[in-house]
Amino acid sequence: MERKFIKIAYIGGGSRQWARNLMSDLSIEKQLNGEVRLYDIDIEAAYDNAKIGALYQKNPQSVSSWNYIVKEKIEDALIGADFVIISIMPATFKEMSVYLHHPEKYHIYQSVGDTTGPAGVMRSLIAMPIFVEFGKAIKKYAPNAWVINFTNPMTICLRALHEGFPEIKAYGNCHEVFGTQEDLAEIFNKIKGVNIASREDVKVTVSGINHFTWITKASCFGEDLMPLYGKQVEQYGNIDGESDKEDFMKHYPFGSESKVKYDLFKRYHCMAAAGDRHLAEFMPSSFYLKDLNQVAKFKFHLTPSQWRIDRLKEYQLLTKQLIAGKKELTVKPSGEEGIRQIKALLGMETLITNINHINIGQAIGLPFGQVVETNALFRFDAVEPIIADKLPLEVENMVKTHMKGHELLIKSYRTKDLKYAYEAMENDPLCKSLSEKLVSQMFFEMVDQIKSYLTYYTI
Amino acid sequence: MERKFIKIAYIGGGSRQWARNLMSDLSIEKQLNGEVRLYDIDIEAAYDNAKIGALYQKNPQSVSSWNYIVKEKIEDALIGADFVIISIMPATFKEMSVYLHHPEKYHIYQSVGDTTGPAGVMRSLIAMPIFVEFGKAIKKYAPNAWVINFTNPMTICLRALHEGFPEIKAYGNCHEVFGTQEDLAEIFNKIKGVNIASREDVKVTVSGINHFTWITKASCFGEDLMPLYGKQVEQYGNIDGESDKEDFMKHYPFGSESKVKYDLFKRYHCMAAAGDRHLAEFMPSSFYLKDLNQVAKFKFHLTPSQWRIDRLKEYQLLTKQLIAGKKELTVKPSGEEGIRQIKALLGMETLITNINHINIGQAIGLPFGQVVETNALFRFDAVEPIIADKLPLEVENMVKTHMKGHELLIKSYRTKDLKYAYEAMENDPLCKSLSEKLVSQMFFEMVDQIKSYLTYYTI
Amino acid sequence: MERKFIKIAYIGGGSRQWARNLMSDLSIEKQLNGEVRLYDIDIEAAYDNAKIGALYQKNPQSVSSWNYIVKEKIEDALIGADFVIISIMPATFKEMSVYLHHPEKYHIYQSVGDTTGPAGVMRSLIAMPIFVEFGKAIKKYAPNAWVINFTNPMTICLRALHEGFPEIKAYGNCHEVFGTQEDLAEIFNKIKGVNIASREDVKVTVSGINHFTWITKASCFGEDLMPLYGKQVEQYGNIDGESDKEDFMKHYPFGSESKVKYDLFKRYHCMAAAGDRHLAEFMPSSFYLKDLNQVAKFKFHLTPSQWRIDRLKEYQLLTKQLIAGKKELTVKPSGEEGIRQIKALLGMETLITNINHINIGQAIGLPFGQVVETNALFRFDAVEPIIADKLPLEVENMVKTHMKGHELLIKSYRTKDLKYAYEAMENDPLCKSLSEKLVSQMFFEMVDQIKSYLTYYTI
Amino acid sequence: MERKFIKIAYIGGGSRQWARNLMSDLSIEKQLNGEVRLYDIDIEAAYDNAKIGALYQKNPQSVSSWNYIVKEKIEDALIGADFVIISIMPATFKEMSVYLHHPEKYHIYQSVGDTTGPAGVMRSLIAMPIFVEFGKAIKKYAPNAWVINFTNPMTICLRALHEGFPEIKAYGNCHEVFGTQEDLAEIFNKIKGVNIASREDVKVTVSGINHFTWITKASCFGEDLMPLYGKQVEQYGNIDGESDKEDFMKHYPFGSESKVKYDLFKRYHCMAAAGDRHLAEFMPSSFYLKDLNQVAKFKFHLTPSQWRIDRLKEYQLLTKQLIAGKKELTVKPSGEEGIRQIKALLGMETLITNINHINIGQAIGLPFGQVVETNALFRFDAVEPIIADKLPLEVENMVKTHMKGHELLIKSYRTKDLKYAYEAMENDPLCKSLSEKLVSQMFFEMVDQIKSYLTYYTI
Repeated sequence: MERKFIKIAYIGGGSRQWARNLMSDLSIEKQLNGEVRLYDIDIEAAYDNAKIGALYQKNPQSVSSWNYIVKEKIEDALIGADFVIISIMPATFKEMSVYLHHPEKYHIYQSVGDTTGPAGVMRSLIAMPIFVEFGKAIKKYAPNAWVINFTNPMTICLRALHEGFPEIKAYGNCHEVFGTQEDLAEIFNKIKGVNIASREDVKVTVSGINHFTWITKASCFGEDLMPLYGKQVEQYGNIDGESDKEDFMKHYPFGSESKVKYDLFKRYHCMAAAGDRHLAEFMPSSFYLKDLNQVAKFKFHLTPSQWRIDRLKEYQLLTKQLIAGKKELTVKPSGEEGIRQIKALLGMETLITNINHINIGQAIGLPFGQVVETNALFRFDAVEPIIADKLPLEVENMVKTHMKGHELLIKSYRTKDLKYAYEAMENDPLCKSLSEKLVSQMFFEMVDQIKSYLTYYTI
Repeated sequence: MERKFIKIAYIGGGSRQWARNLMSDLSIEKQLNGEVRLYDIDIEAAYDNAKIGALYQKNPQSVSSWNYIVKEKIEDALIGADFVIISIMPATFKEMSVYLHHPEKYHIYQSVGDTTGPAGVMRSLIAMPIFVEFGKAIKKYAPNAWVINFTNPMTICLRALHEGFPEIKAYGNCHEVFGTQEDLAEIFNKIKGVNIASREDVKVTVSGINHFTWITKASCFGEDLMPLYGKQVEQYGNIDGESDKEDFMKHYPFGSESKVKYDLFKRYHCMAAAGDRHLAEFMPSSFYLKDLNQVAKFKFHLTPSQWRIDRLKEYQLLTKQLIAGKKELTVKPSGEEGIRQIKALLGMETLITNINHINIGQAIGLPFGQVVETNALFRFDAVEPIIADKLPLEVENMVKTHMKGHELLIKSYRTKDLKYAYEAMENDPLCKSLSEKLVSQMFFEMVDQIKSYLTYYTI
Repeated sequence: MERKFIKIAYIGGGSRQWARNLMSDLSIEKQLNGEVRLYDIDIEAAYDNAKIGALYQKNPQSVSSWNYIVKEKIEDALIGADFVIISIMPATFKEMSVYLHHPEKYHIYQSVGDTTGPAGVMRSLIAMPIFVEFGKAIKKYAPNAWVINFTNPMTICLRALHEGFPEIKAYGNCHEVFGTQEDLAEIFNKIKGVNIASREDVKVTVSGINHFTWITKASCFGEDLMPLYGKQVEQYGNIDGESDKEDFMKHYPFGSESKVKYDLFKRYHCMAAAGDRHLAEFMPSSFYLKDLNQVAKFKFHLTPSQWRIDRLKEYQLLTKQLIAGKKELTVKPSGEEGIRQIKALLGMETLITNINHINIGQAIGLPFGQVVETNALFRFDAVEPIIADKLPLEVENMVKTHMKGHELLIKSYRTKDLKYAYEAMENDPLCKSLSEKLVSQMFFEMVDQIKSYLTYYTI
Repeated sequence: MERKFIKIAYIGGGSRQWARNLMSDLSIEKQLNGEVRLYDIDIEAAYDNAKIGALYQKNPQSVSSWNYIVKEKIEDALIGADFVIISIMPATFKEMSVYLHHPEKYHIYQSVGDTTGPAGVMRSLIAMPIFVEFGKAIKKYAPNAWVINFTNPMTICLRALHEGFPEIKAYGNCHEVFGTQEDLAEIFNKIKGVNIASREDVKVTVSGINHFTWITKASCFGEDLMPLYGKQVEQYGNIDGESDKEDFMKHYPFGSESKVKYDLFKRYHCMAAAGDRHLAEFMPSSFYLKDLNQVAKFKFHLTPSQWRIDRLKEYQLLTKQLIAGKKELTVKPSGEEGIRQIKALLGMETLITNINHINIGQAIGLPFGQVVETNALFRFDAVEPIIADKLPLEVENMVKTHMKGHELLIKSYRTKDLKYAYEAMENDPLCKSLSEKLVSQMFFEMVDQIKSYLTYYTI
């Protein structure tokens, strides 16, 4: 097929990570040309990215023609767009440090804090009105566009887009499952004594919700990976307890040794498909997040908000250096699937991958109409979910408990009543160690600190 | 991946058409070796096929090693089989001429007579006990095998397999949709003035039941085929009425000019995906099968049982000549997908194709637990249905009317009570032109003529 | 139980028919006292009703204490209300004469014009924004009240209430099924030669949608009424055709001889449970509404808007005379069930009756989440739908066709896009005799005449 | 309505408790006469009951005419029966003592042992083939009869009846919920300082599975009972721990002080509606059945099989004395609802009560097609389930865990494979304290002791 020219609206176009991955990938893409409209409430960041985008195109490795334009109004970004990409940060690191660290006063530790737990509840409250407005804008200005969300909390952001525009063609993209596929490829290579399998060779059937997704079938080159994984867990799944608090703070905050994942496998005979930092947050706090010693024992890390603040500063410096020509761009495939999905939606290839999507039957046993994560088939102008296996009942019950929380959060938005958000927090397994009274106290203390973002609701 | 050795049990191993297509395809298959156990109640035909199979392997084009062995007992064919293929003829041409032609006395004409209508009811009654027994045998001797059915009535045969073995890994394979894909490729090439599209390039989303399947989305090289198809229908969809009865009998009985399909598109704005001969039988007889003049007007053909009898004789003669070395084998890809599916189930490739399968949610709007036809994803040891679009309500209602008939037929088997089979016939749109009394009369006249096959039921 | 004091908000409190039935019933009610807040945009009518209400209470037959108060603002009517009753006229007789008679130019005759057909579509468009606002007001001012709707189009009004307040405790009340129960009681008495059965003795199981409800089981004093009804249909179900156009215009416009109902029974072996005037409108126009001769043949009547206008004048005159003391009030039980339902919701009795309610599973085979009509159990603060029999497939398919129309109308409101309302009209069986072009022409001509009520939508 | 003559087939007609309750109730029933056919494998017991039945009829309080006839063959009992009642004891007290006491070696204590836990699994294995055969016999000899089951394990017995005859009109009757209604009436009377409420005045909405049923709404004379129950729990729900093992053995083995029920209410904010002895068995053993001290602490009792054996002997002695005229019959209403249900099914009254029935939508959130317990409406020839409230998610998840076990048991029967029964035992919360190895050991030790009843299965 001949090269196509497409228009992408990028909401959160000042994004330092996702946007630049995309720019890098687009610059070496052989079948597409087009324009990317960068829209961001941090308009300086958007202008910076336009410059960076131009640099990518000037780079000798570039084989395509892309024009990066800043749009100061969302409607200007959207009108005529074929694709809309959304990767924003709801509120700021200031609010993040509230929802991440305030619960620590109640001995609730959160390793990521962008999806579930008290942090997830607060971040959802902030994100919902924003995403409903995005949905309304897309309905008005780009009703036929495909909308790809990268923002967390993934599930709630997608629900809110649908709340603003029920007929929206939206889905959510997350690379967490990819990591598990990579681990499985490695396990395959190691156990078989070969070096041939990569992530794409590992075929998985997934079901669940974002960051709490489960693999019910996995194979590689015609070999069932479940028994191999069982061996891996047997060998590395033990908790020897020799780590301590001092030690674990030294490590890079995203690292883990899959101890949580292996432990879940031993408990439920089913493979969890996200990083340990995410998985731990979905379980009662007594499991993996009781205190910092337990975190150390399971060898994963909390990601403090200060770390994120520091990283932002590094990124900002890097941006300046790149624009000033003091640093060289590195161009390499990001490993993300966004562009392959776009090409599949243009009919250029057939793609099967895991995505977040309203449940229309693909997640057997989970409620219809809520957002779930399973495989889907991407073809010309179509994303068709593939029916996943029913999860083991215990896992299904845990997933449904979290989905009840999602429903309460959306109800909170719909009714503009924070009562339901409080109920969502009370429903969260991480909070089950607290009395109702303490949950309520924590909830309203947090609300109070971020209330400027919650004017949508009746407080 | 390295070549694999597999064992296939072929029930109906004396089949002259399907079995030989398979043999031809296997002989030129580069990734598989193995053995095929031929089981057939016509044991002579099975032995003939074993000889033909050996000839295929001796053929210079052959690149594989396959051993064709006749098994006189079904258990010997099944034990240890990785795959079971079923393509049988329920009863004989004698019964076929009853269920195909007896209704003509009541002015009910059937163009194929193997799926629906009075013929479908009778053929189902004959087939159900046979397939339940197959199911039981598979449960006993090859419970982990994948079972691929090619026999009609597809829907009922699959239901009956599940009746015998609910956990069976069975699906049904039918090439009718392929024909529509080929037509669409041709239309694409013609309208775009190119010669590049073949069947595989045409991506379709299908839903419905076997031989009454509907395409809701179709694309080719990133182009929506629906508008192109609309143009085609506009140009060729008229019924000029110049054909007459004499003329239409001269043609090859499988031919058609898609007039029925085009007419259905005009009525329901949805593309039917089967040959006209099949489609016509699913509609009230006033639509396309009122009389032979109407058939001629819509330019399709009835396939009389005598034609099938004559063709059988030709095949038998050909078989003798092949074995005697008086005729040469022709080896070429059959266009069937059976082997690709087997390879996908072995993890050798990823395949998306339309199949018949119990509805676990893929056919939105159609009853759960009954057999439907949609796309599915084939991967290692897995067939995962892909969720199809909901059909237009009028089409959905027609499909459900036929699915009600399927349910009644299965109930007839379960209760061993022919009353429900009669109700299935009464429910059939082809019979709606008759009074209840006449349907009953016709039903019992037909039952009387094939009763030696119906001893399973209370008559 | 002791007498309770309750507060009723009556939206449409100027209603001359429903409101006065209620007043009459309340005046002779032994277990309740209270106040009724009359709210109406026709405020004069509300004040008149307050006077009439006082007259009912002064009447010697009165045994209760009820205070009728006009509230000029809806919030004043709602605050503190235990029950909300809604019986309004969406728009005026001027708009009614448009949606009732304009389609006659296209040979589409409508016998009632308040529920389905082109009239139903237009009336829905007018009613939806009004009822959404009612829903929002109830959410704000009386979130715990029970809401009883009497307004047509029943199904759409209820959906719109839920659109404004999803958690609303609302249901819809319609006496059409009662009429069929009365007929059945009469048939029972006649065939058994007794005079003992009344409506309440006839137990029916109903399913479907308002005014197109179907009875799948009926009994009276332990006797199955289906065979008796069959006999009745055999005796009176013939269409002798001796009526003519002149004759049928003389009759009272609500009369019918159940010929439509009997004909439906012959076709579908299922008992329709509404008056012929309603039922006829749900079927393709060729069935009963082809032209005035056919209406005469089936011995039912069209109700012209002029008749309603004349009746209104009579009511208005009567009101004046009652208030002036020139006419006497008649106090007798209305036969409506509103008050029994209220008492059941207060825990004073147990009641089983048919109501309109969101489908949460009670109408097997019909879509979840849409409004259906089945039996329900009324008890203290609870309306619990009772699971009805699945309808015969042909009937189910017809009902679902109409429910598709409801969905399109709601979508039209949600998206504020009249395109979907047009699709609803196109979907309506009454319009199937017209080409798409003519439906479109008729649709926009009607829209144009009532556009002052459609400012909510994008035209 | 006039008195009707009906025929009842009583399977388990030698029953000393249920059958005699029925006889007593029938003798004072004013609207029914008829015959009861007593069928029992213990034929002596059936003949004894025929004599007792005659005594009831001769009793001066008797107002009806009932004939008690022993039928030695089940078909003779069934042919022509209008109603079939089933109350049998699967196997004998010898097997009961195995499945009740053998698990005690593994520290698994069961307070009843007829429904769930290891005992429930074993009793189900024994009961399933028996009830499938009952189903088949009813299909053959009394396909139109209503079938009322009283036998435990209720859920599994009903599933097995449907397994034998899918179209059977069967439901299951259990008085456990009545007990909770009685408690609630008492609480109402106590707190309100009145003495007016009896069981029938307490209206409850129930959902769940037999013996693990939950009340989501309860009212009495228009008053919400939930707050009253909350007070009761507050006052009496504490566990003071002063009881000890010695003490608790003195009490009557059926007694309890509702401590388990109150504790469940505190945990799940939902009212459990069965006796403590039943409820305790459905929870993980750490909750209430860890050891005998814990049982004592929660003030309920285990019912040892020896107690049942002793009681049987008393009953046998009593039977002899009654027949010999040495003891007088006591005739009084049993409090059971069987006869009211029969009368409602004959159209003599309308009844709403809780029953066990295949889930066709009444138990929102629980799997379709499995047996659940909710309210239903009884009318002429109809049992129509009433839609219950969705249970709180935690309760729903517990119920579904048990329903997974039911499904495994039925699968075990269908496939004749004990593997699935083992999985059911492993799935049971009572067994979660044991390792897989110990569960397996216990399972096969128990199987071994009752294997003469398990010949149906592959061991």
